[in-house]
Formats: sequence, structure tokens, C-alpha cells
Amino acid sequence: MCWVLKMKIEVDGRIVLSDILDMPENEVREFFREINNTVLKKGVPKGAIAPEINSFSVDGNEIKVNIISDRHVRAPNALLRIKKAIGKFLSKYKIGVRKVVIDRCYVEIEVDNSIDRLKLPYATSKIEGNTVKFVVENIEEQKIEDGLIDKLINLVKEKSLQSKYKGKTEFWKLEKKSNEKKMLFDENPTKKALELGWISEFPSIGQWIFTPPITKIFRTIEKMIIENIAVKHGFQEAIYPKLIPLEIYAKTGHLKGSAHEMYFAEPPIKRDSEIFEEFYDYVRLGEIPKDMLREKLKPPLYGVCYAQCEPFYQLFSGKIVKLEDLPLKFFDRSGPSFRWESGGVRGLERVNEFHRIEFTYIGAPQDVVEIRDALLKSAIEIVDKKLDLEWRVAQATPVYLAHEGRVSEEKGNFVHSYDLEVYLPFRGGREESNWLEITSFHVHEDHYVRSFKIKEVKKRDIWTGCTGFGLERWLVGFLAEKGFEIEKWPEEIKNMVGELPKPVNFVK
Amino acid sequence: MCWVLKMKIEVDGRIVLSDILDMPENEVREFFREINNTVLKKGVPKGAIAPEINSFSVDGNEIKVNIISDRHVRAPNALLRIKKAIGKFLSKYKIGVRKVVIDRCYVEIEVDNSIDRLKLPYATSKIEGNTVKFVVENIEEQKIEDGLIDKLINLVKEKSLQSKYKGKTEFWKLEKKSNEKKMLFDENPTKKALELGWISEFPSIGQWIFTPPITKIFRTIEKMIIENIAVKHGFQEAIYPKLIPLEIYAKTGHLKGSAHEMYFAEPPIKRDSEIFEEFYDYVRLGEIPKDMLREKLKPPLYGVCYAQCEPFYQLFSGKIVKLEDLPLKFFDRSGPSFRWESGGVRGLERVNEFHRIEFTYIGAPQDVVEIRDALLKSAIEIVDKKLDLEWRVAQATPVYLAHEGRVSEEKGNFVHSYDLEVYLPFRGGREESNWLEITSFHVHEDHYVRSFKIKEVKKRDIWTGCTGFGLERWLVGFLAEKGFEIEKWPEEIKNMVGELPKPVNFVK
Repeated sequence: MCWVLKMKIEVDGRIVLSDILDMPENEVREFFREINNTVLKKGVPKGAIAPEINSFSVDGNEIKVNIISDRHVRAPNALLRIKKAIGKFLSKYKIGVRKVVIDRCYVEIEVDNSIDRLKLPYATSKIEGNTVKFVVENIEEQKIEDGLIDKLINLVKEKSLQSKYKGKTEFWKLEKKSNEKKMLFDENPTKKALELGWISEFPSIGQWIFTPPITKIFRTIEKMIIENIAVKHGFQEAIYPKLIPLEIYAKTGHLKGSAHEMYFAEPPIKRDSEIFEEFYDYVRLGEIPKDMLREKLKPPLYGVCYAQCEPFYQLFSGKIVKLEDLPLKFFDRSGPSFRWESGGVRGLERVNEFHRIEFTYIGAPQDVVEIRDALLKSAIEIVDKKLDLEWRVAQATPVYLAHEGRVSEEKGNFVHSYDLEVYLPFRGGREESNWLEITSFHVHEDHYVRSFKIKEVKKRDIWTGCTGFGLERWLVGFLAEKGFEIEKWPEEIKNMVGELPKPVNFVK
Repeated sequence: MCWVLKMKIEVDGRIVLSDILDMPENEVREFFREINNTVLKKGVPKGAIAPEINSFSVDGNEIKVNIISDRHVRAPNALLRIKKAIGKFLSKYKIGVRKVVIDRCYVEIEVDNSIDRLKLPYATSKIEGNTVKFVVENIEEQKIEDGLIDKLINLVKEKSLQSKYKGKTEFWKLEKKSNEKKMLFDENPTKKALELGWISEFPSIGQWIFTPPITKIFRTIEKMIIENIAVKHGFQEAIYPKLIPLEIYAKTGHLKGSAHEMYFAEPPIKRDSEIFEEFYDYVRLGEIPKDMLREKLKPPLYGVCYAQCEPFYQLFSGKIVKLEDLPLKFFDRSGPSFRWESGGVRGLERVNEFHRIEFTYIGAPQDVVEIRDALLKSAIEIVDKKLDLEWRVAQATPVYLAHEGRVSEEKGNFVHSYDLEVYLPFRGGREESNWLEITSFHVHEDHYVRSFKIKEVKKRDIWTGCTGFGLERWLVGFLAEKGFEIEKWPEEIKNMVGELPKPVNFVK
């Protein structure tokens, strides 16, 4: 949380009338005094400071007002209240209110934490210790109604929060761990898979072609998860789109903090070969003029699938559900997700394109937590018993905060997120090396329910959760601990995989 | 084919020497006469016109030459030969050749077909009937060596071919068809699926969320195809990346004719949250400044998966294989493909995002044709016997030509492509309505083998082929003919599907 210690807002506003106001100044003063004591006090907590019209002047068909407020009924909002009251008051004189505008709005906020850097949209701002001062000029009525100033104040609060957590590493706390297991391999499995021709490098960063032998192992692990988790816990398969309109990523929050590690996509300006003719000619000459191509495309309209759960919330967006019909439990495994890891790319354990079985669920808070916990329990069973891997579980940063670039929030003692990790012997000793997160288990509370405006028919609480099984990571974790000699593998997976297809044989 | 009836090329070139040429003009004249009669005649067929140095002048350390040629040993090439010969000749005088440049190259080509419109890169051009004239100025040596003029001449030939086929509809010829079958439904299945809550509209063009009931039918059809085709014919599963670098799309030919119906993708300039800070702030205020986002991204680097077979050719790119290790038969079903259908979008039968099982094969020509024919036979068996659909097979435009924006080529009597189509009763009568292509079966000859430089160890011929099963189209074809009353469905698929999960129940 970010605490606002002090707030002061000053608005220079104008109320534009349909006609010249021909009224004694006294009467106007009396009217504004009345408003200060009634309309502007409504909803202000006892003992708190209400907004006040500090001064006014009448000029032709315009009334200029100076309003000062604290945090309760903020000055821009006060201006809108004044507009309504004046409209009523002047109707007997057959004068209407055309519009209100803010010529200048000055805001001063003192927060409980210093901000190191600030650039606000629409505003000029400066930082003095823990106090932020900013000015916005020429705000049209629509923007006032949209709550521009409130949004800017929230932004300052978020930035204060960010500064607070800056430099802090992600939250991580060991919850439990397995016994020490026997490692059958200590090399880097990606290197080995490449040597065997199981994978082939793609001419781009962090993408691989999986040839038949490794694909068979991959699909076996997928089958194991579906049979022992999806089927067991009554999850139903759905198919989610994999190019996500930016409007959805604004609601999920990814566009507030994850865009710098996303891929974006867009179609041509027009589906017309003639506008591409020049481009086609250059390609025929052996060139690929990428900047020319860009000019023939729309601006980015889609994020390429990042979290895989986005369409689940969209399915319920703006809809009314009944608690008795919940929980609903879906999973999707219909296509890859993408992250721009850039220089962070490693072997198969950290790639730009990867496959997940994504479990999503919606229901009563209690149900959602129970479902999440049941998924974790079953996942541990597979990892521990069927694959015989060395694992640990940690409490982690809630996913919806991470995606917005935040690391933690103080919100009860509830554990929102667990990470299931496995040990990678090729990275070094158990204590000092980084383990690999292969699945994370989340409860979002009502985070997405609010942002997608999902309603319950009797306004009862509903929550969502998601759990993503990263298949490449399960695969690499298994190969890193159990190696490439199939005869030494644990019984069940050895039998399920059966005989491996031959890799492609290249003469060179 | 495009026939070139006449060709004339005139080059004004310069040979730049390391020192001033201090030699009697006579001797130079004698040298060029010698070159005209020897070096420039090499490789020119008997009776054909050889290139000729028409005039020359010496100016300090430069020799200017005017060269005229027909199609054999074209003038820019002649200039390169002259450079080599002069280098040899002058070495005894301790003078070297620094470089050659073309100041002006004039080309005149008469083709067998008029061109309606022409704009050539690097050139100014005009059309006179069947003759194209173009001029390119200031060509550096590297571009001469890269064959710029040859590439431009090829481009003129391709454009002549395009004009020839312009307006021609795609090639289509009925090969065979099924008996008339009993239709159990005559409505639009997309509309019905939407009413039932089986599918849900996504807030974008041509994308849908598949909820559990329809997903179960979709996966059943997929299973049917895998068991009865992939397994039966010894295809092995692989996993292909789904963002394809543009360099690969240049090789497949898609960037020469399909870009206007593709989606493109790109990552950020840098994986750094600070360069996105301003963008994040606007999103927090409730806006999505798309043009600002575009500025923070690289130019398009990837095409979003269009044909699904691209990584298969890439796997073999530049590699040497042995015929005895072939044929290799792979299939991929690891994620969606995308086409920007724009206004062409219909229901589930023509969408922007769709799923395919893509079969790809490489081997001896005979094997590739046999594999393709076997896939067609098995696909017909499923459609006819297991799904009881009314179908037909047509000969169609080879896929690798279609993707480059061409419709046909005269190349033997070999059938390169078959389309398997099903009847959609909701579209109207059997004769007058458009049937739906659900799978196409292709032999590419050595088209991709050449463009991806795949070699056979003993230079024996290898071909490739691909066959894409459009799963949404199989689904919509089935629902369009057999409807939504499962108890009336053909026995095998009814049993395989079993009980359907309930659709999501929205109060509103």
C-alpha cells in the first residue's frame, strides 16, 4: 500500500453559460456560499476537510471559480457538482450551462515514501522529498468526467509504491521440499538434446524445432498431466485464441508492466496485394525491406499470447453468472505462448516460445483456493512419485502483481501464489544454484473479476485462479535429473514413452 | 512461362585503374578488338548475338566503355569479364583494376504478353505494347556481381506472367466425388453453435473461443485423423515454432505474394521497462497509445504462422541428406495458424485463427507422390465412411504458386495439388453453392528443396510435399451436414465423442 499523508488540489475552472449572466454579484455570492455549505459537503467524512469555492468572478457568459480541496470530494469533482447546482439554479432564468472546463489544476501530494523519478502524462511535475507537485492545464469536461486528475493521483501513488519495492527481489519463501533424490545425469540437457538431433536451432532467438524423439517425451508428460490432473479434478478442455487484442491486455494489466517482454502483432493496413507490390518486388530481388513493410501494416493491435489465461476472463467479461453454476474449471493446451527474453534466453529451460497446459478456474473464494491447493498436491504427486524428481515449493509474488511490474502487496496472510520448482544438477549444488520453476499456482481473489466486470447474480463474491504447467520446463527438469538413458528412467514414464522414433540423420 | 521475344542491353561502364593509363590508343583499341572476339564470345550459342564493346575512351586512370548485348552474356556480365581481362593485360605494366561501375544501363525487353502496370525498384521504366524499357543508373560493382540487372529482367518476366493470368480464377477441375448423402441439418452451424454457447465471440475479427462441448468434438476429429492417417502411414509428430522469421518467409515465397494476408510480429527495441514507462503511464490512465507503442518496437521481424510447414524445410536447410534415409514423414499440431481474411471472414469455416494438423514429407519424387496419394485416399475414407459426409476432390493450383500470388504453370501433366471439399447445405444447392475445402494435398517437386538449398549426398532428386487438415473446417463441414443432434450422428464418431460437457450458463 501507499499512504497519502497530505493532499491539496486547487482548480481554476470556468462555467460557460448559454447567455450573459445579468445578476447582482451579491446574489451570486449568496448562491456560492450556499453551495459551499451544502452540495460540496455531501459525502465528506466528519472532521475531514470539504472542498470550498475560494473565489469567483463573473465575466459575460462565464463564471470563473477557484476551488480548493483535500482528498475528499476532490476539486475537479466539486466543479462538476457546482455545474449541476448552477444548472438547476439558473433554469428559472432560462439560462443553461454549456460546459465546464478547468484552465489549471494544481495538485500537491505527500506520500509515505520518496519517489525517485517522475514523468506524468498531461502534466508538468516535480518532486520535493516525499511530496509530488503537478499541474495540468486546459482540461475539457469529458476528461474531468473521466477522472483524469484522480487517475494521475493514482499513478503517483503507484509510482511511490514502485519506488518502495524497487531493487527488492521477488518475494520467495520455501514452503516444503522433497527428499534428496538420486541424480542420473549432470550435464546440460539442451546441449545433449542438440547433439542427439532431438532439437534443432531455429534462425531466431529462443525458438527450437522439436523433432520426433523429444516430441514423444513431451507429449507423454502432457498426457500424464492431463490424466492425473485435468481429468482427475474435473477440468474441461477449451480452445483459446492466441493473438490477444490490446484492449484485453489493458484489462489483465499486462500493458501496465509486461509489454517490454511481449511480442506484438498486426495485420496489413488493407488486404490488397497492390499496396504490397513494391514490397514484393524488392523481395523478388532478394531483399527484405522491413521498414517498408512496417509502413504497410497497422500499428500493433495484438499481443502475442503471453499468459494463456486471458481469453478465459474475456469469456466472462461483462456477463452475469450464478454461484450455483460455479466453479467452472477449464484448461487450454492449443498453442504456444511467447516471451521476449532477449539476452535472458538459456537452453530449453528459458525460451521465447513455449507450451503450457493452462488451468483456469472461477468460483466462490473458498472453492478457488481449494482447487488451487488440489492442483498443487496432484502436481507434487506426479513430480515426486511418477517422475521421481527432486522438488520444492515456494510462496511467490502473486501473478497479477508481477505482470503489472509489482512484486508484493500487504493483503492479509493469504498465500496467493505457489511455485513448484525442480533441481537442475547441471547448474551446480542444491543450495547455491537456481532451481527451475515448472508450474505456478495462483489465486487472484477478485482481481480479474473486477477488471473484466464479471458479476454474480446476487452480488456474491467470486474469485478466479490459474495454474500454468510449462511443458518445456517439465521436460528439461526431467531430462536434467534423469538423463537420456531411457532404461534407467522411472517405470511408468519409461513404459508410457515406449520406443523412441529415430532422430533425423544428416550426412552434414 | 513467359517468352522473351527480344532483348537489348546497353551499358555505359567505367573501369577504374590504380594509375594513369599511358598507352597509345591504338594498342588499347587492338586489345578491345581482341576481347570482343574471344572473352565476350565464350559461352554464346552458335548463331546467337554476343556482347560487344561498341566504343571506348581513356581518361586519366579511367576507361569508359559502351557495351551492347542481347540475352546471352548480358552487358553487365560482359563488363565483369572485361575487368578480369584488363587486370591480366595490365599486370605487366604494374597497373591494377580498382573497380568497375555502371553509370547507366539501358534494357529493352519484348515479351509475349503485354504488361498492364510496372514500377521497378532501382529503375525508371516504361511500357510500349509488349516492350518494356528501363534504365538503372550508378550501379556499384557489388550490385553488378549480385546480378541486379538479371533480377530486374526476371521481375519483368514474372510481371508479364502475372498480367497473363490476371483475372483468371484459380485452377479447379473435378477429379471425383461421393454419392449423394443424407443431410441432417440445413442451418448455418456457426450460428447454432453460438446460440448453444459452444463458441464465444472474441473482441477481434475472425477469432473465437471454443468452450468445452465443441472442443470435445474438435479433439475427437483430430484423434480420428491422427489414428487413421498419421499412425497408419507412419508419420511422426514434431513441434514447429509458430513465429517465423521473415528470412524463412522469403525462402518459402510467402513474402513474394501472400504478405497482404499475413499477420506480422515483433518484439520491443529493448527488454527494458524504462523505455516503456511513458506507455505504461498512459495505459494506467485508461488509454492505449498504439502509435507510441509502435515506436518502442522493432520493425516486423516475424510472420505469424501462415502455412505451418515452414519449419520443416528450415530443419533441412543447407543440410545434406541421403536418399536411403528418406522418406521422412512428420506432422505438427502444436498451435494455430493465422490469415488476415479481413472482410472475407465468415463463420467457423473462414476464420483468421485456425488449427491444422500439418503433414510434411521429403523423399524421392516417386515416394512423395505416393505418400500424397495415400493421404488423400485415407482422408476420403474418414470423410466418406466414418463421418458419412458428401465430398468431392478437385485438382487445384499448386500451393507454392498460390502463395507467391500465381495461379498455374505449364509443367508436365503431373497433378500437383488436390483439394478435398465437403458440401455445406446451408449455402444452397449442390450445383450452385461453394463447397468447403477441408484439406489440400500437395507435391512441391523440388521447389522448397531448391530454395532451402537441401542437398542429396549423391545429387539424386528429392522432392517435398505437404498436406494440411484444417480442423475447424472438418468440424464445420461435419456439423453442417450432420447437425447438432448427437444421437443421429454416425456410430463411430458418436461413440468416440460420448457425453458432451455442459456449455457455460450465463444469467445474462
